[in-house]
Amino acid sequence: MKAKKPFRPKARRPRGFEDRSGSVLRVERHLVETASRVYDDWGFEPLQTSAFEYADALGKFLPDEERPNEGVFALEDDDGQWLSLRYDHTAPLARYVAENFQDLNKPYRRYQAGDVWRNEKPGPGRFRQFVQCDADTVGAGSPSADAEMIALAADVMRAVGLADGDYVVRVNDRRILDGVLESIGAADPERRMRVLRAADKLDRLGRDGVAQLLGEGRKDESGDYTEGAKLDAAGIDTVLGFLDAGGGSRSDVIARLEPLIGTSDTGKAGLAALAEIDAVLTAIGVDVDRALFDPSVVRGLGYYTGPVFEAELLAQASYDDGSPIQFGSVGGGGRYDDLVSRFTGQAVPATGFSFGVSRFAAALSALGLTGAVEEKPLVLVVASEKDRSADYLAMARELRAAGFRAEAFVGSGNMGKQIKYADRRGAVAAVIVGSNEREEGLVTIKDLKLGARLAADISDNKQWREEQPAQETVSRDGWVAAVSAVAQRNKP
Amino acid sequence: MKAKKPFRPKARRPRGFEDRSGSVLRVERHLVETASRVYDDWGFEPLQTSAFEYADALGKFLPDEERPNEGVFALEDDDGQWLSLRYDHTAPLARYVAENFQDLNKPYRRYQAGDVWRNEKPGPGRFRQFVQCDADTVGAGSPSADAEMIALAADVMRAVGLADGDYVVRVNDRRILDGVLESIGAADPERRMRVLRAADKLDRLGRDGVAQLLGEGRKDESGDYTEGAKLDAAGIDTVLGFLDAGGGSRSDVIARLEPLIGTSDTGKAGLAALAEIDAVLTAIGVDVDRALFDPSVVRGLGYYTGPVFEAELLAQASYDDGSPIQFGSVGGGGRYDDLVSRFTGQAVPATGFSFGVSRFAAALSALGLTGAVEEKPLVLVVASEKDRSADYLAMARELRAAGFRAEAFVGSGNMGKQIKYADRRGAVAAVIVGSNEREEGLVTIKDLKLGARLAADISDNKQWREEQPAQETVSRDGWVAAVSAVAQRNKP
Repeated sequence: MKAKKPFRPKARRPRGFEDRSGSVLRVERHLVETASRVYDDWGFEPLQTSAFEYADALGKFLPDEERPNEGVFALEDDDGQWLSLRYDHTAPLARYVAENFQDLNKPYRRYQAGDVWRNEKPGPGRFRQFVQCDADTVGAGSPSADAEMIALAADVMRAVGLADGDYVVRVNDRRILDGVLESIGAADPERRMRVLRAADKLDRLGRDGVAQLLGEGRKDESGDYTEGAKLDAAGIDTVLGFLDAGGGSRSDVIARLEPLIGTSDTGKAGLAALAEIDAVLTAIGVDVDRALFDPSVVRGLGYYTGPVFEAELLAQASYDDGSPIQFGSVGGGGRYDDLVSRFTGQAVPATGFSFGVSRFAAALSALGLTGAVEEKPLVLVVASEKDRSADYLAMARELRAAGFRAEAFVGSGNMGKQIKYADRRGAVAAVIVGSNEREEGLVTIKDLKLGARLAADISDNKQWREEQPAQETVSRDGWVAAVSAVAQRNKP
Repeated sequence: MKAKKPFRPKARRPRGFEDRSGSVLRVERHLVETASRVYDDWGFEPLQTSAFEYADALGKFLPDEERPNEGVFALEDDDGQWLSLRYDHTAPLARYVAENFQDLNKPYRRYQAGDVWRNEKPGPGRFRQFVQCDADTVGAGSPSADAEMIALAADVMRAVGLADGDYVVRVNDRRILDGVLESIGAADPERRMRVLRAADKLDRLGRDGVAQLLGEGRKDESGDYTEGAKLDAAGIDTVLGFLDAGGGSRSDVIARLEPLIGTSDTGKAGLAALAEIDAVLTAIGVDVDRALFDPSVVRGLGYYTGPVFEAELLAQASYDDGSPIQFGSVGGGGRYDDLVSRFTGQAVPATGFSFGVSRFAAALSALGLTGAVEEKPLVLVVASEKDRSADYLAMARELRAAGFRAEAFVGSGNMGKQIKYADRRGAVAAVIVGSNEREEGLVTIKDLKLGARLAADISDNKQWREEQPAQETVSRDGWVAAVSAVAQRNKP
């Protein structure tokens, strides 16, 4: 009889999920830490809600309103209640505020960074788990609170190292388009939703495509037909004129929008909000190059009730092949006055902002804005003699005390393998004390960056071995200073 | 017909989960950031695996080996595969290493902090989601790598602000007890497991209880009977002597253990590992007051194969009622050489360490080691005139530029409510510019800490209103300096 083979599961990352490591993760952390510091400075308090929410409390506010039951990871708890993993930080915040309403200081200002999950079909760059970083003010209905959110977003962009002009926050107010629709007699909910959806596609379809969706309808490349909002020609012109009304100073945009809303009170409330936002932003020094008014900003989520905003990267960068990278939106937010009332029936005004951390961090990486950690050089102490690892670990400790990241090699492998390891880890130097050096009180230091450059020029292996051009041997007294000199000359 | 009432879900946090906020969360962040910096300095790389793993890849390594199928949150993906939320960071690391084995630098040194989930019965202080912070070295079999882990744990304890003597890492090697059991002829797997479980209960049951479990068996208070390891009297004495062999220098402990293992090769390998760990720790300056040898350390998890360690807080603190807080273990780890081979069949030595972040952070809070953020004082700018919020937000900006956390009140409520808000938020001062101050170019500054102390002494409301002892009115030029003076005199 043959012995039964042990079960060996296949090691595989679940479909649609990411493992993130090294510098990618360091940049994400730099971003979240920087944003958290800004939020702290503005008087916001940190919050971490549980990853799970009861399914009924979480509600159905996912972007894809046409498939409200899809999109969440849910499971049945042992008491029969359904638990869902949060898909954003806003719905859990609404639950938290409703549950703790009496005990919270109002306005309640909190920030939260962490994973969110969406049970969607994964695709390139589209994962089922990702990190969002949010700040919200709950219990403040004034446009000043919205202006503060916009300024916060702009300040975070600046704090992570972006130059003014390399980013902008685009601001709009949902109610202005409602005012426009009232003024052209097209304000019924169904039509309004079709117009919002059409407007949200301006980037993708252009003016002509949007015009079709505002009118009879549109057939896409695949032959699918989308029913239109059935506006007449004048109505389509008015809406397109509205979408085009951005550009110039914030008060210029307000002046252009005023005639489009007619006598609509809703529209007037939206314009008044923009005027107050302009006043606050101007008073606190956020100029139009950092926050502008753009009526084409719609935001996908159905729960916004007033001002909406998007943070966009304008900085230029290119892929290795030279083609430009389009960064686009890295975050957004707006006012949502109805979310807490789902639980309590009581209206609680709220406004907030959310950064997509992975996307934003990827952009910062591409722009070389990676924070401080990577600047601390790594040094490897080679394990030359098997029974001397205590010495090597003690040397690594000396290097750390001198400001390096440092490790002594604790794996197995000969010198060549260890130097290759140091190279691949991005170490700036390798430190060697073999039996010869030990007996003579010496330390050999390999400059790995110089070594790599020289290796490209020297084709003769023998010559290389004899000259050892990228290494020096120094006395035990001065070895840390010698490593510092190597790091110094290799500074980027 | 009555109108249908809208559905109002009850706002409630799921059973067994936590919402964490404010200073609790700040201390957790301080701990994770500090530990990450230490791991970075030692040459470890950050990693974040996905929250989900395939159920078969996750395996069954939960502490409660008697109910291996319980304890995880699992759901079926739309392709029929079962996904489980990770219950620690070690099993996902094993999957990650097996999946990326060819591409990883070996030894692979990584750290990971994040949530883990356990689908267990919640209880007081026992949650179904909590944060762990791990560091591991994969691909290094030498005790030097274990020694490094022990030193890392001790260095993190020091880096978060604990004084030497207020913490200790207790170290043991699993193989020594195996050697003891071989020497007394009790090394069969079933008996070994019973002895390990008995030893793990020394803290809880004391020597007599453990002696019963090493012998025939033990009936607990509820009447439940646990079958014993059936050692004879001499065997019980030997094992208890082994558990008692700690104390004094690390080489003292080794000397005491040597006679207990007889001629067992397994036992000798364990002792040799401890000797090398001692040599490394001594060479890098980790003395016995920071890392000691304690044969009673067993660790619950079945996957450890060699050295094991626990980090314990020794610092004294007390509850409000004066009774002492027992902090106990805040982390632990050890060598687990078989975890990656589950996937590949290939032996990959590994060693690691894990901090329980919530428990550790709670202890740091109780000891007042809360990091830097809380030291930055908060100031509230009161919204006195409804239409002047731009001015107030601009003043908050000036305060931030001067090094304060600052916010302008953006909610609704009169002066009294706003001052109460500032008090509850822990603000050090409130800044007031009402219409009088504005017209005269003045700013009123309320010292909230002084105000609270004086209010305890003054019972006469009229006197209070007339004297306003804790506030001053200064000219617009010097108002930020005046706030700084208030913060200065209220420094803890």
